[in-house]
Amino acid sequence: MTTFDAKQLANVGVRNLQPYQAGKPIEELERELGISDIVKLASNENPLGLSSKVRAALQETLSGLARYPDANGFYLKAKLAKKFGISATQITLGNGSNDCLELVARTFVNDSHEVIFSQHAFVVYPLVTQAIGAKGVAVPAANYGHDLDAMLAAVTEKTRMIFIANPNNPTGTFLTADELASFLAKVPSHVLVVLDEAYYEYVPEAERAPSFDWLTQYPNLLVSRTFSKAYGLAGLRAGYMVSHPEVADLMNRARQPFNMNNLSLRAAEVALDDEDYLQQSVAVNAAGMEQLVAFCEKHDLAYIPSHGNFLTIEVGPNAAELYQQLLRAGVIVRPVAGYELPHHLRVSIGLPEENEAFIRAMEQLL
Amino acid sequence: MTTFDAKQLANVGVRNLQPYQAGKPIEELERELGISDIVKLASNENPLGLSSKVRAALQETLSGLARYPDANGFYLKAKLAKKFGISATQITLGNGSNDCLELVARTFVNDSHEVIFSQHAFVVYPLVTQAIGAKGVAVPAANYGHDLDAMLAAVTEKTRMIFIANPNNPTGTFLTADELASFLAKVPSHVLVVLDEAYYEYVPEAERAPSFDWLTQYPNLLVSRTFSKAYGLAGLRAGYMVSHPEVADLMNRARQPFNMNNLSLRAAEVALDDEDYLQQSVAVNAAGMEQLVAFCEKHDLAYIPSHGNFLTIEVGPNAAELYQQLLRAGVIVRPVAGYELPHHLRVSIGLPEENEAFIRAMEQLL
Repeated sequence: MTTFDAKQLANVGVRNLQPYQAGKPIEELERELGISDIVKLASNENPLGLSSKVRAALQETLSGLARYPDANGFYLKAKLAKKFGISATQITLGNGSNDCLELVARTFVNDSHEVIFSQHAFVVYPLVTQAIGAKGVAVPAANYGHDLDAMLAAVTEKTRMIFIANPNNPTGTFLTADELASFLAKVPSHVLVVLDEAYYEYVPEAERAPSFDWLTQYPNLLVSRTFSKAYGLAGLRAGYMVSHPEVADLMNRARQPFNMNNLSLRAAEVALDDEDYLQQSVAVNAAGMEQLVAFCEKHDLAYIPSHGNFLTIEVGPNAAELYQQLLRAGVIVRPVAGYELPHHLRVSIGLPEENEAFIRAMEQLL
Repeated sequence: MTTFDAKQLANVGVRNLQPYQAGKPIEELERELGISDIVKLASNENPLGLSSKVRAALQETLSGLARYPDANGFYLKAKLAKKFGISATQITLGNGSNDCLELVARTFVNDSHEVIFSQHAFVVYPLVTQAIGAKGVAVPAANYGHDLDAMLAAVTEKTRMIFIANPNNPTGTFLTADELASFLAKVPSHVLVVLDEAYYEYVPEAERAPSFDWLTQYPNLLVSRTFSKAYGLAGLRAGYMVSHPEVADLMNRARQPFNMNNLSLRAAEVALDDEDYLQQSVAVNAAGMEQLVAFCEKHDLAYIPSHGNFLTIEVGPNAAELYQQLLRAGVIVRPVAGYELPHHLRVSIGLPEENEAFIRAMEQLL
């Protein structure tokens, strides 16, 4: 047992992987600084907390927790299928949509492939690509958003997958249905297009892409959605991907059988029907967005117009320092230097008083 | 968009993957047969249901569900470290230990490697191996258990990993600490040994292997444990792997940041301290095992002596038919033909009245 080099034994992609940096948890800041009354606007969470209907359903579900979850998520899939006019066979359930994004890559991508995503796009795309040992191709952004023509031009024979986030995190940029439709029509059929719609519910209905309808025409399209944002279930991990049934079948083979637990399955079922909560989420978000935009304009701070539940603000070259100062003031936001946005901070939309706390802290620090 | 062949696009390992067959859920049998009062003894679940202490803690945790979980599982790791005298840096948390088993394979194994496991061993080992495209090497069992000498003899230059389940599922066979220690001393250091101790808590203390202590001497050893069995949290998905810190660091890079959710983290923390529940689990299991063994001996049915929370009984060539008959009688057990045990059925130990229901149904059918 003389020589043991763990790193040498690890797969090349994993060896140099920089793990996902989560938003700083409230408890962690409490531990580190010994302060309380902390406002967390760092992880695009839903400031309303859990819906009361979901809470009631979870209470009832606690009894069954010693049993394994339904590995097929029968009831949740049936509900999704009915609500969206799709077939349950098109659905892959995930432990958050993060799980689906990883699953699709593991199912279809290997180390001989290239995967295309945009500069400033969600960091999980390059992470899952690297973990597999595939080559990630980051296409320069146009005005902080996806440059679809440039992404098309980057397609080669080796390209197996393109990730598109709409709206995009952390920039909040948005592609119209026409732009996406025109893009899809040009992507070769051997290239899978993963359309990540984690922030879909915050987009006004008239502007939303009919992405599920496109699945009939484009069997190489996959659409992911989450319960972590507008539905308020970030802590329960619930997401799903909708695709061609054969694609879903393959992903479900690679899926861990109990990736969604009893409570997340049940909570997602109830959340899907809780229209009041959803509408309140959207309304609170719209009001908070106005509040933050007004603050930016008052202080001549540039920001990236956002279609999500967050606003990314250009605070200048001292963004990292400002982040630390905000922490000490009890406000957690998100540095986005890792997204090649070293002069920006991303602020999640909170309750009016949480947004106000951020604004007050900023006004003292600026 | 003329040609689209999803299967052709999928990675070779995934293409022909037969997904894990979960035990039949109670609700599914209700849907299919329209019967109630169903006894499920199919998935090695804890018949006690959720511990009351865990239930109380979950009630308190519901409020925070709209927030993302702590990606580092700070409190749970701290508790595990303290309880077992290990370092938090040695721990990788999983969405069930299933997640850890998959994670270790994805981190260290690629399609140029071989992975060794035993005939009749837990099906997740060949599944994760195939998903990666590595070559699985199933070593014939000795008396239904791991033949460690034969497994050692199967090691080649390409071997990257050996899975050992102790006790093994679905046979319940057990390797003594001496047998394992002698095996570990002979495994080359470039081969990782994954010791799956999902049923560890059911083994009498005096017989348990000091597996965590071995980690100092054997940096190529990884030990996984679960909260799904004796701790009664199958529906919440909580497990962990303990290893050399560098191994854990690499696995944590490949881990999904929120693989364990808020509730499972909290439940595991509380369950770990709930000694009363754990002792009751073990006692109920021991009594139920006696009950089932007595039934087998009364009817001259051969069974595999088990160290787990289940008993695998040789019922003869009509096992598949008997399984269906038991379903119609409202008793769900587990067929194990997929484990090359076509003449056996695996029965999880339930509450005394559940075991009795199985016995009554069997006595009518035999």
